[in-house]
Amino acid sequence: MARVVVDVMLKPEILDPQGQAVANALPRLGVTDVASVRIGRRIEIEFSGEPDLDRAREIADKLLANPVIEDFTVRVEAEEPAEEPVEAPA
Amino acid sequence: MARVVVDVMLKPEILDPQGQAVANALPRLGVTDVASVRIGRRIEIEFSGEPDLDRAREIADKLLANPVIEDFTVRVEAEEPAEEPVEAPA
Repeated sequence: MARVVVDVMLKPEILDPQGQAVANALPRLGVTDVASVRIGRRIEIEFSGEPDLDRAREIADKLLANPVIEDFTVRVEAEEPAEEPVEAPA
Repeated sequence: MARVVVDVMLKPEILDPQGQAVANALPRLGVTDVASVRIGRRIEIEFSGEPDLDRAREIADKLLANPVIEDFTVRVEAEEPAEEPVEAPA
């Protein structure tokens, strides 16, 4: 199994009210050194055979992103993640 | 400016109907070698000074992820993206 990751983010010139809401909430957590927060989507596509970047790019363009307001990047992800997911505290 | 990226994905045991809907649409595009599609969130946090992973982890835990159903990973991203964003065809 090979995993292709598609990252979809709003274009830089498009306002991101959801990210802005998170940024506005940060001072309440005592965080004052964050300049901006942008929220997008991460899509993991598992291919049953070889990962196909061109195919993934076509899927992203047709189904996952709105090219009018969003940019996307496509990459093959290594089998093992660089960092273990953070487990929720028990 | 330093960028920290938080990837939030549903835990593997949680159903992802949004990803399933994309997976179900793939045969119409002629794609038959995709085993699964999972859709999560990618959050980019720009720190005005040094990137602070512990701080970002706290933000993710309190504001960005629901630890009951989601896992997240936190990492510092290099200044230059590995791949240029795909531009929408003109």
